[in-house]
This record gives sequence, C-alpha cells and structure tokens, in this order.
Amino acid sequence: MKLAIAQLNPIIGDLTGNAQQILDAAKIAAARGVSLLLTPELSLCGYPPRDLLLNPSFVESMATTLAQLASELPPSLAVLVGTVTPNPHALVAGGKPLFNTIALLKSGKVQQIFYKRLLPTYDVFDENRYFESGHESNSFTIEDGGIGEVGAKESFSLSPHSPIKIGVTICEDLWNDEEFWGKRSYQVNPLADLAREGVDLLVNLSASPYSLGKQKLREAMLQHSAKRYQTPILYANQLGGNDDLIFDGSSVAFNSAGEIVCRARAFETDLVIVEFDEVRKDLVSGSIAPAPDGEEAQIWQALVLGVRDYGKKCGFKKVVLGLSGGIDSALVAAIATAALGADNVLGILMPSPYSSAHSIADALALAQNLGIETHTLRIGDLMAGYDRTLAPLFTGTEFGIAEENIQSRIRGNLLMAIANKFGYLLLSTGNKSEMAVGYCTLYGDMNGGLAVISDVPKTRVYSLCQWLNSGRLGNEGMGNISNRQIIPENILHKPPSAELKPGQVDQDSLPPYDILDDILYRVINQHQSASQIMAAGYDSTVVNQVLRLVARAEFKRKQAPPGLKVTDCAFGTGWRMPIACRRY
Amino acid sequence: MKLAIAQLNPIIGDLTGNAQQILDAAKIAAARGVSLLLTPELSLCGYPPRDLLLNPSFVESMATTLAQLASELPPSLAVLVGTVTPNPHALVAGGKPLFNTIALLKSGKVQQIFYKRLLPTYDVFDENRYFESGHESNSFTIEDGGIGEVGAKESFSLSPHSPIKIGVTICEDLWNDEEFWGKRSYQVNPLADLAREGVDLLVNLSASPYSLGKQKLREAMLQHSAKRYQTPILYANQLGGNDDLIFDGSSVAFNSAGEIVCRARAFETDLVIVEFDEVRKDLVSGSIAPAPDGEEAQIWQALVLGVRDYGKKCGFKKVVLGLSGGIDSALVAAIATAALGADNVLGILMPSPYSSAHSIADALALAQNLGIETHTLRIGDLMAGYDRTLAPLFTGTEFGIAEENIQSRIRGNLLMAIANKFGYLLLSTGNKSEMAVGYCTLYGDMNGGLAVISDVPKTRVYSLCQWLNSGRLGNEGMGNISNRQIIPENILHKPPSAELKPGQVDQDSLPPYDILDDILYRVINQHQSASQIMAAGYDSTVVNQVLRLVARAEFKRKQAPPGLKVTDCAFGTGWRMPIACRRY
Repeated sequence: MKLAIAQLNPIIGDLTGNAQQILDAAKIAAARGVSLLLTPELSLCGYPPRDLLLNPSFVESMATTLAQLASELPPSLAVLVGTVTPNPHALVAGGKPLFNTIALLKSGKVQQIFYKRLLPTYDVFDENRYFESGHESNSFTIEDGGIGEVGAKESFSLSPHSPIKIGVTICEDLWNDEEFWGKRSYQVNPLADLAREGVDLLVNLSASPYSLGKQKLREAMLQHSAKRYQTPILYANQLGGNDDLIFDGSSVAFNSAGEIVCRARAFETDLVIVEFDEVRKDLVSGSIAPAPDGEEAQIWQALVLGVRDYGKKCGFKKVVLGLSGGIDSALVAAIATAALGADNVLGILMPSPYSSAHSIADALALAQNLGIETHTLRIGDLMAGYDRTLAPLFTGTEFGIAEENIQSRIRGNLLMAIANKFGYLLLSTGNKSEMAVGYCTLYGDMNGGLAVISDVPKTRVYSLCQWLNSGRLGNEGMGNISNRQIIPENILHKPPSAELKPGQVDQDSLPPYDILDDILYRVINQHQSASQIMAAGYDSTVVNQVLRLVARAEFKRKQAPPGLKVTDCAFGTGWRMPIACRRY
Repeated sequence: MKLAIAQLNPIIGDLTGNAQQILDAAKIAAARGVSLLLTPELSLCGYPPRDLLLNPSFVESMATTLAQLASELPPSLAVLVGTVTPNPHALVAGGKPLFNTIALLKSGKVQQIFYKRLLPTYDVFDENRYFESGHESNSFTIEDGGIGEVGAKESFSLSPHSPIKIGVTICEDLWNDEEFWGKRSYQVNPLADLAREGVDLLVNLSASPYSLGKQKLREAMLQHSAKRYQTPILYANQLGGNDDLIFDGSSVAFNSAGEIVCRARAFETDLVIVEFDEVRKDLVSGSIAPAPDGEEAQIWQALVLGVRDYGKKCGFKKVVLGLSGGIDSALVAAIATAALGADNVLGILMPSPYSSAHSIADALALAQNLGIETHTLRIGDLMAGYDRTLAPLFTGTEFGIAEENIQSRIRGNLLMAIANKFGYLLLSTGNKSEMAVGYCTLYGDMNGGLAVISDVPKTRVYSLCQWLNSGRLGNEGMGNISNRQIIPENILHKPPSAELKPGQVDQDSLPPYDILDDILYRVINQHQSASQIMAAGYDSTVVNQVLRLVARAEFKRKQAPPGLKVTDCAFGTGWRMPIACRRY
C-alpha cells in the first residue's frame, strides 16, 4: 500500500489557498496510486494561526472549507488534514473552546476526527491559550475490501489484506518519551497508549519549527520510538517561513527497526511516497533526500527560505537594505539575493563623514559579486541639518550617543522612504549579539519589516560568510549566487565597526565577539546565572556587564521587527521579558 | 481579630526591594494589632515576572529571599506572601517545573505553602507556560492559644476563640463560578471545593490588571460568591503599572451576606485593616474607599499611574513628547504632567511648512495651561535635506505616503535625539483608532518608550479631554493640574489632521471616528465577523476597508512600544496576530 506525505507551505489564514494546495497534492498522490495522504498539522489554516483562532467566524470558515475540500478530493484517497474544531463541552464542563484536530477525509466526507493530546506551551508555542487537550487515543483502521467503500465509522476499505490499524498523533504528542528525554514533560504519553492498544503504523502530523540541530534530534527521537514500540512511524512536517518561524520540512519515515526509509527535502515543499508492506506490517521503502550538510548549510537554507516566504506571503517582490561595507549587511544581501534573485535586491550605501573609504569600496565590491543594484546617498548634509535644527537645545553638549544615533536614524529614514516610495520590503541587518546587548539603534539600523539575522550571533555571521566563500553552496540553484567568492575578503578581515564616530570599533564598547557570544549563549539559551558563567572561567566584570546590557536592551528588542529564528532561543515570540524590571 | 491587606506596588524582579515593602507593611500592621496580613499574588517578584521564571537562579533567589523575609517579620504576625516554588515531581511525573505559590510565614518560618489551581492562559496571561496547576484545596487554621505559638503544621495559635479555618485562593481560582458567568472556564472550582470543606473565611491574593469596568465586575463576582457560599471574602490586589499592565488595587472585603465591608484605594498603594468577628465568624468592618467615579475618571487615573510607574521603574525622572497642537498629544501631555509634575515634562513643537498657524498656537496654549516647558524646532530645513538627498531616486515621482512619512520620521528622530541627549523617556502619543488602522508612522510618531494612549480610541480621547476640562478632576492632587480648563477649546473643536500635506484631515482617509471606533470595538474586542458588523447596520465597503486596514497594520503594531492597557483587549502582550497572513 502506498502512503504519501504532502510537505506543504501554507499561508496563515488563507483557507481557500491552503485547501487548494492539499487538493493539488491529493490529485497527484491519487494518480500515483496512493491510498493515504498525510498533510502537516493545521494544514488548512497554516501553523501558527495565533489569535485568528479567537474569531469564531474563522473557525466556522474552517469547517466549511474542510467540508468543501472533502467533497473535491479524489474518491480513492484518504487524506489526513489538520484543522481546528470546537470543543462542544467547553461551556458546561469547563475547558478551552477548541481542539487542535486532524480530520480523516474519505469518500467526500469527514470520516473521523482526532484531537491533539499534548499541547506545547513554552518557547514560541501558546497552544494552551486556544486548545483543550484530547483525552483519548487516536486511531483508525484501513480494512479489507474495495477502494472507496466506507465501512463502519471507524474504518474504511482500501486493501485486500488484513486490517491495518493506524495510530494518529499530532506533533507534540510524540515528544514525551521519558526514555529518550530522561524526563517527562507531560503526564501522559500518547505513543505509549497507542502501543499498548497495538497499532500497525504510527503517523504524526507536525508543524515543528527549525532550529539548529533540530532535525537530528527529531530523527533520533523518532528512531528511538520506532524501535521502542517496534512500530513504523510516518512523520509529516510543515514547510515554509511564517513570520519569525521557519518550518524546515524534512518529513521522514522510520520502519519498525528504527531504520530511516524515507526523507522529504529540507527547506522545500515536497510530496514523497512510501510503501507500506501489508503482510509484514512495516514501512519498506521510499526515497531518502539528503539531510542538510553541516551547520552553516542548514542555517543558510533556513534564512533564505525565511526571507523568501516573508516577502512572498506579505506581498513584496523586491527588498531594499542598507549596505554599510560591514559583514552583517553583506551576509543579509547575499541571503536576499539567494532568496529573491539579484534583480529584486536593492542596496543603499549611505556614507557619512565618519565612513572609511574601504566601507564604500567593500560595499560596492559585494554588490558587484552579487550582481545587485546600488545607490549611494551621502548623509553628511542631513547630519548637518539635524545639528542646525537641534542647536538651540544641544549647543554646549558633547558629541555622544545622541549624535551617533541620529546618523543611524537618518539612514533608517532614507531606507524607509525608499521602501515606502517603491513598495519594497526593508530588511534589517542586525545580528543577535548586537540585539542582545543593545548595540544597535532603535528606529535606525533596527528598521525593517524583517530582521534576517537577528538570531545569528556575530561569530556565526563570520562562519556563514566563510562557508559562503568556500564554495560549498554547491549547485543547489540558490538564486543567482554561483560557486565562487561572494563576500569580499576585506569585509571578512577588517575589525567590525559601526563607524558612527572617528576610529570607532565594536570592541571599544564590547568584549571580543568570541567571548561575548559564548556568554550570551549561556545567558539566553541556557538560562545560566552570573555565578555559573563565572565558574566557566569568565571575568566577573565582563559577565556582569553583559548581563546588565542584555537586561537594559529589552526595550529595544520589544520594538524590533520579527526576526528569523534559527536557534533554540530567539528574541522573538518565544522571548517574553518584562521591560520595567530590576534584575541585575 | 484584625486582618489586613498590603496593597503593594512591586518592581518586577526586585526581590530585595519587594521583600522590604512587605516587611515595612508587616511592621505597621503588627503595630496596629493585626494577626494576619495579606499581600498580592507573587508579591515577592511582582506580577507578571514572565520569562524571568525560566532562570533557575531567579527561582532559587526567591526561596532565599523568602526565608530571610520570614526571619525578619514581626513574630506576632502571620503573613501570606506570593512566591514561586519548584514542582518537585515535574521530571518524573511530567508537568511544568513551577507552582504559583502562596507561602504562609509565621514565627520566622514558612509554615505552609499553597499552590494556585486555575492558571489563566488567555489575553495577557501565560501561566501555563510556567506553572503546573495545584490539585488540592488550600486552607489553614488559626487556633486558640497564645500569640506566636505554632501548633501543628497546618495551624498556629492567634486567638482565644474557636479555630478559624481560612481558605486560600490565588487570583484566577476565584474566577470560575458557573452561576455567575453562565459557563465554566475550568473543570474545577476551588471556591466550591473550599465551601464543601467548610471554611470560615476565604482569602484571595490577586494580581488582576485594570481594564474599564473591571472593578465593578470583580465586586459583583465577589459579592455573588460571598452570598452563594455564605462566607466572607478578603481580596488583596496588586497595585502599579508594569509595562503595559496597570494594576488598580481596589482590594476589597465582603461579609458573608455579600455586603462590602472594606475597600482599599484605587490606583494607589494602601494598607487596610478589617475586623473579623470570631464569634459570628464574619468580616464586620473596615474603611471603604470610594470607587473611581465614572469611566473617564477611572481611565485617567489608570493612565497617570501607568506613566508614573513606567518612568519610575525604568529609572526616568523626565519625559519628552511632541506637541502637534492636536488632541492626542494634548491628552498625553496632561497625563504626563499629572503623573510626573510639570517640571518633568518637556514638549517639543516641530512645525513643518504644512502645519497650520493654529497648531503652534494651540500647542503653546496647552503647554501654558499645563505649565510645561516647550521648545520649537522647525523641520522644513530637514525636509528639504531629505528631498535633496533622495532626489537621485525620487525625481519624477509624486508626493505621497513616502514624503508624508519622512516628516513624521524627522520628528521622531529629533525627539529621540533629545531623549538620548538628556536621558528623558519619550512618550508616544498615538491613539488606539490610529494603531488599529495603521494611521500612524512606524519610526515616526510611533517612536517612544511607552505608548500612553494606544489603548484609548479616538472618541474616548475626546471624552477624556472634555472630562478633564469639566473640572471634575477635583482635589485629588494629581500633579500640578488644577481644577480649570486644561485642553484649549480649539484643540477640542478643530477637525483632526496629521498635517502631513496641505489641507489634510483624518477623514480624507478614514470613516468618521464614531463609526470607526464602533466598528473597531466589534472587530478587536468582540471578535465579530464582517457579516456580523454589517448586520449592525454598517456599510459593507466601510466594514471591509476597516477589516483590511486592521489586518495590514499588524507589522506596525508588532514594532510599537508597550501601550498601557485600559480595555479588555489591547494591542499589547494579549494581542498575538500573525503578520504574513491572508485573512481579508
């Protein structure tokens, strides 16, 4: 029997468009003789729909669209679709008004519905905000008999062999194996419940966002579960960028021995077919796409997808960004070029009297390497204009942060003017290290619709650029970037500087980036205390300085654009800190 | 027996300072012969601590600080303190790692701890993100015997009368009465459980944020519960502004007949004492502070508190804001003056060639009424500077949104320069109607550390100003604002305009504000669909325009400063919408 995974890229809230994607995949699958098609979690509305779910008419539209989709699907095919359904008992028994649901569509109708049992409410996830937990094990049976014949409510006929019992889980339902994690996160383990009941195949419909190393972790966990329960697992993941979250796809199948038998492509939509042996009751074969090769390749692909989808889903064809001649804007320009094509990227050089000659030369060399258009707008005239305008208030004060920020905000204003005038999306280019310590100007270089590398620490910015220059990007057809040096050597080797006053370099204000980034990782991703970080060998003055800077920059991060999440703790929807606060 | 409520204003994360506040209140209460003192929910760390709770060392510090506080408290007094404790069974049994806890401190020690049972996870609340629900009813007994003698673990001696059994609930634990609400939100009702067990007194430690009408609702609910269970209720609420949330205090006590016997002040810290009659087992008397009189008075006091606390808790003494001569900045200036005093408010006038003469005159008249300092910085020179700088790109294009936004961003840059130079907090002045439809400039008039009226619809901005001018502010000692006309008549009566091009008025782009605000209320606060709103008599073109504008402005709201919440649905931590989205 052929099973398939449609690794789709939905647009949040676009029920009609998303249903069409499912229908298109179903038609292809049916033509290839597939019996059961999996789509990702909440495939009808896209994940995460967030507070769209608070609108009852949105939930009603999902029911209507689902029924319409069921009626249009090829009759030979059973399809598992992710949707949201009302909790009929909420008002009387208490509980959240909705369930995160999988609908089994077959023969023109919704045959069964299954409720998600484990609801992630941590990091970027807010499922307890909307959903009630399902309390029952979820399964259905594919029985012997003619195709398209629907049997009892809980089974339908597809195959001439003995019935196949399929256990249905939704994303988090699979993430509570106390053997694998060494702890429990939830009281129940839906997988163990299904194994106790005895199922021939486990399916999981997911929307699991990318972070570095996540796919390795997922596959290790799935392998462990397949082996532990001696049951094959078919895992369908969502694809695509949705605001700060990037879903990497990489849907995968393991046989009952825990061997991988199929993997969909990473960072691209896909439709993969895998064979289920009805005699041996096991997944036997499928195509195995390679996993991304190395950390830099993974992050690169994630960021390219994130930029492409944010632009597309927000309706932008072209992007604009400031090119400072520094490494951050160089990397973002390269990512944008790979995502959208060189013709759709506009670089703006905005030198000031404090800019060094190499900044302009380096930025132009980069633009030439990428093949993108640039314009140069000098900001000295505007700086003088602000000086004149503010003179009644500022005369007699010393040049300082205020004047540095004015420069950055002039650039931010020019970039937004261009974005507004031509309908381009402005990309902001700040890295995670800057965002963490507040080494960035609110309403200046932080301006933009999307913060492309705000979850990429400075040291990783360097390693990504080195990787890019090493030619390992290969022939994967990423935009117009070909297999040669992209980032001019001088950009890689000069000391980082904001160039907001003469001779300024980042290390005037900050610890060296290798030290800073390690401390930041301990603070942000590992929630270490000052004493723990000092115990790792760092100087207490430096540690306390960094902790204070991170706490004090919260007001800036609050007003930052959405930033693409590529680590396990980003400054985005999963970072919820008070501003008016006294911690350090 | 005397019971007391310390209606405290904690700083989030400031464990030492908050413990000191509790200690100070306890000393006063002990001196007045109080036996039991209540403090608000999470009084040790302040509510909401948000992701500070993810740092294990923060939770450890709370235990240390709590033990220290217990050792310092007057020995005659029992104190209920809100804190966070680890869930010892989390790793083995599954579940969140923490409990939202009340500690009963007496005789130098933590005598008992009680876990919150109902965890709000909606609107601004994220408690399921951190906490596990308590599963047991919470109570303790005050027994006959000498003061300071501690009896069994679950009781201690305070009174010569028969034991008094006190049921302990934490905030949401009280908010699930199916009779009062006509529905259940949670499966269990901790109040009903306690009533079944039989308690002589119910206490509730809360951190219930203000929204319009909330206190009336709280009191109606408490009254209902007191009567239903024929049990007196003592309700302690937090006070103070914490980022977007304003806690209004208004702690209150009801006797077993549902009659109010005590009310603490609204929008101010307080320490109130209420007598418990040990024979009749009822609350009998206390002082009853007046509830705020009318909607405008409530909102005014909330906003004044919100500004004062945000400034104070972030370490700002002075604020700066742009004075356009319009009604929004006039209201914000008045609020800031009431909050911080006229000497601490700086108004900046930034007229352009498109500004009308009355704008400057009106702004100056307002500043004179308030007694605040102003400076005037003309932006025409900078506008010309941007035109010159952008000419290579913009020549041949028509004046439009890009040019309008440049003006707003010049002003935003000037205001931030002044804020940065002198260490002032910039207040942004946009109202909720603008924020809803995006009639505001990102990085321009949206700039600021705090959006004072971003949850106040334009029609309410008018009614607040009219109320202010009516002299009903009274003698409550709000800053330097005295009992006379504050907002110049011309500001109240001229048509609203952004003055970003000649002759522009808001109603060129938007429906009249009374229509717009009602549609917005239906969309935002009531989650109505387009067809529901049309059924209320609105034109479909207007409704669809508004729905589209609201959806399209999400990217702006994402980057807005925290805005003081005064309605039941604000664009703040309780508003979580996708940006890249296709809904309308």
